[in-house]
Amino acid sequence: MISMTTVPFSRVHIVGAGLLGTSMALALSERGVAVTLADSSPTSLSLARDYGAGDVWEATMPHPELVIVATPPDVVARMVVDMLAAFPEAIVADVASVKGAIYAEILRLGGNLERFVGTHPMAGRERGGAVSARSDLFTARPWIICEGAASPTELVTRLVISVGAIPLAMSFTEHDDAVALVSHLPQLVSTLTAARLSDASAQSLSVAGGGLRDVTRIAASDPGLWAQIIGANAGPLLSQLTALAADLHSVMGALSDLEAKGSRTTLADTLQRGHSGVARLPGKHGVSSHVASLIVVIDDTPGELARLLTQLGQWNVNLEDLRLEHSPGANVGFAEVSLAKNAVAEVEKKLVQGGWKIAGERP
Amino acid sequence: MISMTTVPFSRVHIVGAGLLGTSMALALSERGVAVTLADSSPTSLSLARDYGAGDVWEATMPHPELVIVATPPDVVARMVVDMLAAFPEAIVADVASVKGAIYAEILRLGGNLERFVGTHPMAGRERGGAVSARSDLFTARPWIICEGAASPTELVTRLVISVGAIPLAMSFTEHDDAVALVSHLPQLVSTLTAARLSDASAQSLSVAGGGLRDVTRIAASDPGLWAQIIGANAGPLLSQLTALAADLHSVMGALSDLEAKGSRTTLADTLQRGHSGVARLPGKHGVSSHVASLIVVIDDTPGELARLLTQLGQWNVNLEDLRLEHSPGANVGFAEVSLAKNAVAEVEKKLVQGGWKIAGERP
Repeated sequence: MISMTTVPFSRVHIVGAGLLGTSMALALSERGVAVTLADSSPTSLSLARDYGAGDVWEATMPHPELVIVATPPDVVARMVVDMLAAFPEAIVADVASVKGAIYAEILRLGGNLERFVGTHPMAGRERGGAVSARSDLFTARPWIICEGAASPTELVTRLVISVGAIPLAMSFTEHDDAVALVSHLPQLVSTLTAARLSDASAQSLSVAGGGLRDVTRIAASDPGLWAQIIGANAGPLLSQLTALAADLHSVMGALSDLEAKGSRTTLADTLQRGHSGVARLPGKHGVSSHVASLIVVIDDTPGELARLLTQLGQWNVNLEDLRLEHSPGANVGFAEVSLAKNAVAEVEKKLVQGGWKIAGERP
Repeated sequence: MISMTTVPFSRVHIVGAGLLGTSMALALSERGVAVTLADSSPTSLSLARDYGAGDVWEATMPHPELVIVATPPDVVARMVVDMLAAFPEAIVADVASVKGAIYAEILRLGGNLERFVGTHPMAGRERGGAVSARSDLFTARPWIICEGAASPTELVTRLVISVGAIPLAMSFTEHDDAVALVSHLPQLVSTLTAARLSDASAQSLSVAGGGLRDVTRIAASDPGLWAQIIGANAGPLLSQLTALAADLHSVMGALSDLEAKGSRTTLADTLQRGHSGVARLPGKHGVSSHVASLIVVIDDTPGELARLLTQLGQWNVNLEDLRLEHSPGANVGFAEVSLAKNAVAEVEKKLVQGGWKIAGERP
């Protein structure tokens, strides 16, 4: 369970009333903190205030102990430096999804890193605006806290825990390398694949299945925000793309001359490396290799899936994952229920006895 | 609903007792067809027979009216030609996931295309063997039937409908171009991304989220089978990869010199094209732009998700999609329920009244 602790600040000022800023303001207000808000847009600011996120900042107010900068990435460094100057006693933290470029810019602008903590909550990226803000946005999400030489990270770590998030300590280089791999690389790969669909025939698209859907899902994210993010983490992302491009060109070379020595081996090796790589991703409980799936046929009517899950709940089956799949024009669907591998055989038997049709298994 | 018709063949011979061959044999046996089986592996053959898929073929048996070749792709053409010769009155069909290379090889081997029909059921690719076979594997799945100059496609189309699949007519070039785009390209892109995880730090992997998981999911497919598939569709896949590589290199060029004229535009344009491309994928009912999602907080205990879905079923809400997301080490999860956009506001209100916590929305 999430351990709750007291918020280690009594006055917090939040700059940027977007999704992250407003959610943080709501979470802290709920916990009795005096929250003040600022935003370059008077509309966003009023909206956040009306939601009960906090009071609009005025110069006569007592100074905050903590400032959280939650602006778009390209103005974070400037704002951090301004806040460090405006509140010489306060700790200043940001929540941007890139870190190294922001540190470098703060230094260039003469900011004092001794009162700055760079952080990155892994939450909420694909939805925008104060209108989507929730006080429980950070519940159970990882929240990276970057350790600087003299940064006051301990108080910020306690803050993060107090709103229900899971703190993870990293250097800013470790952070940028990690998000380049787990976030920016898949985003760009998804985008590049989805870009191939722009001029595809409707006939081709009609046979698209779950695989294509999975790979291109995050290509639907906000293009403007992502242009800022990948621009601000260009170096680490470029390293990942360079390595991927080398593999891509090996495969293209092999495909262009399949009879050449080594071509078949290149294809087999690349597919095998991908197979091994994905197995390293931690599952829900860090045990992905112990999970298997049953594919159950369900009528495409309201309540049918609930009936299946009620049944599974009655048998005390804990789902690791669940996905729905439909075919174009059909009135039946498939639910892929993932569960502990050692429970599959018994659950399958019970389902069949209960009249469910099993369309297959996945290891 | 699926329209059921009578199977237009009374004797069918199936070569290859793997997942597709055995599933087809089960489906046809259930419908009263006399099915015979052959496989180069005596073990697979016995297993399929013991499942009730059909009888093991013997030379003294009456000739089949239809032969279905369901062997691995690299021996399909040879087997089709042998079957055309062995049964001079029979129609011969295959079910391989590539078509042009197989047509060319059949011609090269002197096969008679007037009795051959190339087909491709879009089902079951990621799970292997007779052990996973199901008579309803093809229910509601698209099944591509390639139209040759003089191919007897009409009877095969009726066969496909009789086992519950949805027939789609294409030329073999249309087929190969379509699957290169919707199946082989995403497979390889997923593999290349997952290959980057092979030597990643455990720390990086610990912050992996749903995006990376989606993109790399199909990299877990059987590497050996996929090496055959992409090798046999090298030309169309190479066209797709060449176009993707061109976009990739534009992005890499832009990232390596962000201040150069046009760099920011290249990033923004590429992200925008991906955004537009994914919007073209047909949704469950062909209306993906009319669907939105609510992200609901659920306790990570058996039955909790069922309780949510039972509630939705009682309100007559028809789910378009459903996904679960968990954070490492947490005891709460998130269910992303997708529904018709115009129903979101009312459903959200009812859920909140019912005590559910909403963690966010996705447009």
